[in-house]
Amino acid sequence: MEIQRLPGFRDFYPDDYAWREYIFSGWRETARQFAFQEYDGPMLESTDLYRKKSGEELKTQLYRFVDQGNRDVCLRPEMTPTLARLVAARERDFKKPIKWFSVASFFRSEKPQKGRLREFSQVNCDILGESSPAADAELIALAIQMLRRFGLTDTDFYVRLNDRRLWRRFLDSKGVPEDRLTEVLAIVDKIERESEANTQAKLKQFGLSIAEIRAFLSQPVAELSDFEPLLRELRWRGLRDFVEVDLTVVRGLDYYTGFVFEIFDRQRESRSLAGGGRYDQLISTISDGAVDLAAAGFGMGDVTVQDLLASLPHTRARAESAFAARYLQVYVAVADEDLRPEALGLVTRLREQNLRVDFALQPTKLGKQFQLAEAAHAEFAVVVGREWPEVKVKVLRDRSETAIPADELPAFLTSAMKANR
Amino acid sequence: MEIQRLPGFRDFYPDDYAWREYIFSGWRETARQFAFQEYDGPMLESTDLYRKKSGEELKTQLYRFVDQGNRDVCLRPEMTPTLARLVAARERDFKKPIKWFSVASFFRSEKPQKGRLREFSQVNCDILGESSPAADAELIALAIQMLRRFGLTDTDFYVRLNDRRLWRRFLDSKGVPEDRLTEVLAIVDKIERESEANTQAKLKQFGLSIAEIRAFLSQPVAELSDFEPLLRELRWRGLRDFVEVDLTVVRGLDYYTGFVFEIFDRQRESRSLAGGGRYDQLISTISDGAVDLAAAGFGMGDVTVQDLLASLPHTRARAESAFAARYLQVYVAVADEDLRPEALGLVTRLREQNLRVDFALQPTKLGKQFQLAEAAHAEFAVVVGREWPEVKVKVLRDRSETAIPADELPAFLTSAMKANR
Repeated sequence: MEIQRLPGFRDFYPDDYAWREYIFSGWRETARQFAFQEYDGPMLESTDLYRKKSGEELKTQLYRFVDQGNRDVCLRPEMTPTLARLVAARERDFKKPIKWFSVASFFRSEKPQKGRLREFSQVNCDILGESSPAADAELIALAIQMLRRFGLTDTDFYVRLNDRRLWRRFLDSKGVPEDRLTEVLAIVDKIERESEANTQAKLKQFGLSIAEIRAFLSQPVAELSDFEPLLRELRWRGLRDFVEVDLTVVRGLDYYTGFVFEIFDRQRESRSLAGGGRYDQLISTISDGAVDLAAAGFGMGDVTVQDLLASLPHTRARAESAFAARYLQVYVAVADEDLRPEALGLVTRLREQNLRVDFALQPTKLGKQFQLAEAAHAEFAVVVGREWPEVKVKVLRDRSETAIPADELPAFLTSAMKANR
Repeated sequence: MEIQRLPGFRDFYPDDYAWREYIFSGWRETARQFAFQEYDGPMLESTDLYRKKSGEELKTQLYRFVDQGNRDVCLRPEMTPTLARLVAARERDFKKPIKWFSVASFFRSEKPQKGRLREFSQVNCDILGESSPAADAELIALAIQMLRRFGLTDTDFYVRLNDRRLWRRFLDSKGVPEDRLTEVLAIVDKIERESEANTQAKLKQFGLSIAEIRAFLSQPVAELSDFEPLLRELRWRGLRDFVEVDLTVVRGLDYYTGFVFEIFDRQRESRSLAGGGRYDQLISTISDGAVDLAAAGFGMGDVTVQDLLASLPHTRARAESAFAARYLQVYVAVADEDLRPEALGLVTRLREQNLRVDFALQPTKLGKQFQLAEAAHAEFAVVVGREWPEVKVKVLRDRSETAIPADELPAFLTSAMKANR
């Protein structure tokens, strides 16, 4: 019996890993450009940490068990409770606003399907201790720039923007109490998929009509002056074209307290690439009132981002050329086994120069060594043979050849590589 | 009630994360210089995968539970079984030797103590499909180079080398059957800590005397010709001084089939930094005979490596200067709030040039903005004020100041940074 990996989990063979590394380092470098600092927490947390956030009822899709110390524990399903725990424990140590990010794995025991796995990775970016729309704009700009870095443009994706407060005000004016907001939004969420009669019937219990809802949803943007401070910030950054106000974005609105956004693939609108918003009460809830900090943030998942990048020719080509930057640089071919000691010394020196270098561990025919060099996409083959202490340097791309003293090889290769860039 | 993190687990605040990132990227870059390719697997695996390796009895310190699909699962305690599963599933897709590495987290439910945590990270490097001492040397050289990269030298650490086959041959000659090797080695492992009488009594049941064991252990290296092919390879690489043959290294000898090594901190010999060896039968055992590949590898843990690097002044200083390379590059100070739109445009352009840039989200006094720039260790402050479209560039280290057109800023900063390197 061959043991399989668990359903909903992924193996990352080197080709798969190259994608993961590409996406993770794109996220990390962009976050650092925005002056966010990286943090992380444990993969396993007390179940209580998640109980606080969701109130009395825990999510059903937790990987939850009792550990050997009889503790009720969970594989983390999301980052925000851990972030709240970290900040609550040492809040005074950090200047505000706190701009932090993490790239981490999460676990959800749900039915695996396209774009949804049981173990997945996300970048999570948050600004704590700053309640202004300038912070909201900084986060949206960061999310946009993370996608642009991979070559995506405003023809590939866009941001749908909403604000919980607008719905609250509207429903207030219709006499719907605040604690029923979530129920109304769940109906709105399905408005395009359910029959009009069904929706109408459901809305009726809140004293609402489908016509009222439609009128609210179709307000012209110009009238939604609430968004102006945020949209202005984005205009100043040259990002206004990426963003559309859309009052139908209701996912997570009960959790958030202010602006909320989701980023969608323009080709397949069902595919959400990232989402977030303002959650000013959550840190206080999770820390049991110990710390009260304004907060906003977003998460972006690796699964949908990679699907999109791999499906578009321009972003796929860009990723592949990034993979190539990791290929082998030098293959040291041993043409004469008597010179293996010299060849190994050379390999060691080149590696100490931070070059990526390989060679045949066992005596191997020279022709075969060249094949191995090409299979590894090496840039150069260096032949150690009778001419030692001279070596032949072959540029594998154009098969041009130079003979130089082995001592001069590191300098020669470094400058030849720069010239090829 | 404040929720705590679980005992034996770590939080990585940004200062802690900087260490983790430093160690992980040192490992990764060194592994790539040795032409190893990165892979990874799931954090959760079927418990069966670990049952195969250890024979009938499972380790007790597994984080093991039954998932919602009624599967017996484990948080991975080590990488090798996952590696064996990956390779067994697609063995023909890869040229031999396979040189792979991973940097990953593992879980062990044991009593937390100095240097031992319940969640820890390791780099694991393996060569599959190559049984020669050249592969063993490539692995030892990689482990050494990973530590040298952090500034450690042969006065800080050394490699203790042993080989299971020597013990087998010795015990064979004394009539001890192979399947009792592990028991004898367990006695040898405690020889310096137990009373002579106790050891003598235990050895007697195997027909051995303490004198015989001591004679075996103290053979001069010159007589141990079995190590010559491996030591010769290391000599060619200039690494012979890092390695000592030591027949008392018996940890894991029942698991390995050939050479075995451990790397120790010279100051505190109890502290093992890395360990590994040859395990030619394991892939076949785990894959139930589906794939039979020679294999050798090692693991190096983050906990002991970081402890050592932080405790030595020269490696600590080197780490800290690497952290500094991640500091903020540019702080854009807004001297006139009317120019906030221009300042935000400038921030956006600088970030698009891959610079790390921050600014005050809210109107802030200029003096305070400079304080924030310094607190973030920024290299430059750029002041957007009345002189716009000229800006003032201040080098924070020496407080020198230049006025230049904003358009020329990206080029100016890039060349000023190069000059400062």
